[in-house]
Amino acid sequence: MASTRAYAVQDAVTPLAPWTINRRDLKPTDVQIQILFCGVCHSDLHTARNEWHNTVYPCVPGHEIVGKVTAVGSQVTKFKTGDLAGVGCLVDSCRVCENCKEGLEQFCANGMVGTYNGNEKDGNGNTYGGYSKSISVHEDFVLHISDKLPLEAVAPLLCAGITTYSPLRHWKIGKGHKVAVLGLGGLGHMGVKLAVSMGAEVTILSHTASKKADAKRLGAAHFVLTSDEAQVKKVKGSFDFILNTVSADHDYNLYLGLLRSNGVMVCVGAPASPAKIPAFNIIFGRKSFAGSLIGGIPETQEMLDYCAEHNIVSDIELIAMKDINEAYERMLKGDVRYRFVIDMATL
Amino acid sequence: MASTRAYAVQDAVTPLAPWTINRRDLKPTDVQIQILFCGVCHSDLHTARNEWHNTVYPCVPGHEIVGKVTAVGSQVTKFKTGDLAGVGCLVDSCRVCENCKEGLEQFCANGMVGTYNGNEKDGNGNTYGGYSKSISVHEDFVLHISDKLPLEAVAPLLCAGITTYSPLRHWKIGKGHKVAVLGLGGLGHMGVKLAVSMGAEVTILSHTASKKADAKRLGAAHFVLTSDEAQVKKVKGSFDFILNTVSADHDYNLYLGLLRSNGVMVCVGAPASPAKIPAFNIIFGRKSFAGSLIGGIPETQEMLDYCAEHNIVSDIELIAMKDINEAYERMLKGDVRYRFVIDMATL
Repeated sequence: MASTRAYAVQDAVTPLAPWTINRRDLKPTDVQIQILFCGVCHSDLHTARNEWHNTVYPCVPGHEIVGKVTAVGSQVTKFKTGDLAGVGCLVDSCRVCENCKEGLEQFCANGMVGTYNGNEKDGNGNTYGGYSKSISVHEDFVLHISDKLPLEAVAPLLCAGITTYSPLRHWKIGKGHKVAVLGLGGLGHMGVKLAVSMGAEVTILSHTASKKADAKRLGAAHFVLTSDEAQVKKVKGSFDFILNTVSADHDYNLYLGLLRSNGVMVCVGAPASPAKIPAFNIIFGRKSFAGSLIGGIPETQEMLDYCAEHNIVSDIELIAMKDINEAYERMLKGDVRYRFVIDMATL
Repeated sequence: MASTRAYAVQDAVTPLAPWTINRRDLKPTDVQIQILFCGVCHSDLHTARNEWHNTVYPCVPGHEIVGKVTAVGSQVTKFKTGDLAGVGCLVDSCRVCENCKEGLEQFCANGMVGTYNGNEKDGNGNTYGGYSKSISVHEDFVLHISDKLPLEAVAPLLCAGITTYSPLRHWKIGKGHKVAVLGLGGLGHMGVKLAVSMGAEVTILSHTASKKADAKRLGAAHFVLTSDEAQVKKVKGSFDFILNTVSADHDYNLYLGLLRSNGVMVCVGAPASPAKIPAFNIIFGRKSFAGSLIGGIPETQEMLDYCAEHNIVSDIELIAMKDINEAYERMLKGDVRYRFVIDMATL
């Protein structure tokens, strides 16, 4: 067992603080990665503060991990020491269920193992995430990372990237589609970049007027301030697809009304309250209200390769490990354009 | 104006009774149809009793109309006297909006004209439906009816048929798909027949044990009694597609749980209360909660041709016009297998 420096929460109310974890001994199929950068996802905060009521403490968050391979087990074939490597939201799954076989490990019927706050399949307990110096993961759940892109800005692709890429692909978004991205945060700004790169005409729906200036830079064709009724009315019935990244409670019906016939709204955020949708709001216009969760391992690799080819990374603010608690507070206020990434050299 | 015998409601609480309406003089583009049979849809009852709070009285319901062409206007090219013809849920639309141009007249941006309780585009008032001896409709909204099928059993295809055919086509249901049909009534039994004919493995989800005997005859592979928890549990996560025909309030989440990953539940019924759906129930498994409304004119013709080719009609109980009020009461109790059709010779 390798003693490894990390940042952890010990309970729901105490800030993150330095801590030491024991990483498992390298298994024959394991890849050991020196973590260079780790993105900060809103899920990290939810879990740190036990907002989903399932946190096992101590907890080391972080599932947007990029780094360098420092060792490989004797049976590893896909990675070698010195390779760049990434780890996203999951580190294991049963591999034998229908979903796993189809590369949808995130929906593993026997329970996928989260990168943090997950239950190891071998029964050795709780998983610890990327707010640490090193991690060892079965090679099947390690991603290849291109050296063409700035590594720190690649980290958020492992969650924010795949979360938005997967639904765009599943619903075959491309040229000729009018796409709206609701909410311009860590997920939303990736959704805009990806949808634009696929050829869609993208509109940003945001309640933050000051983000309008970013719309053009991100490649969006239009910006609609959702607090301005007149602006919203103008785009009624106009979108083929809405990527809804909002995780605060909101009225889904308002946005279903912005879809044209056969339109689809996909939610990747999970507000606390259930959606309340009168059937008529989906019956008229044959509309779909759908969900999507990250993506499977094959699609995550496809997304990383796609981003390398199309020169797509996240807009990030690099922070030191010690500033993580302040970053959480700023994230809650939406004060980040658009993703915090921790420089693990600072740990 | 042609004086025409009909059955009408004069207000929300009085039963249907004989009445005389004036049908418009034949326009150059009109097809005049002698109505031979008219199906009885639950919407007829909703409208007769003003349950959707939009009924204009007097009201003549009926939008599952089949009959024989008795006259055509001078510019009519698609029909001639003596042809069989059908009229479904709509008799006009703007024809110039995006939806109309795509053959989705049911979603006409300027308001489609319902076959009954609709506003005539020429401002001449309220439309009267199929509980009558004759109707005149623009040829673009008249359907060709094959003479290969029993005409009385074709009538319900004009609403129940297209309502279930359209979503099955839109979501490309076919061989290899596991399809559930929730609710075995007028819509449901058509959904079963159509999905089976398309090659799907169909399960009926019904709360009426006595309907199990019909499952095999309708072509379903399985029958699940929804009041039996053990039976429901067995099909958890197993369907690619659920055609939800229930229009009473029910828990959508139970049935979303029966979908496998990437599954779609399409609602064609509209309960009074909104659906309450926690985002996690669609995010996990990338599921879709969707709606669908009848179908456009081109697809309705396609459906009729498909049914003629595959020998598909509705299971009906033929009634006399005078028995319509009793039929409504029996319909409310689900006491019909599976659609009432009025023999207009009895009017």
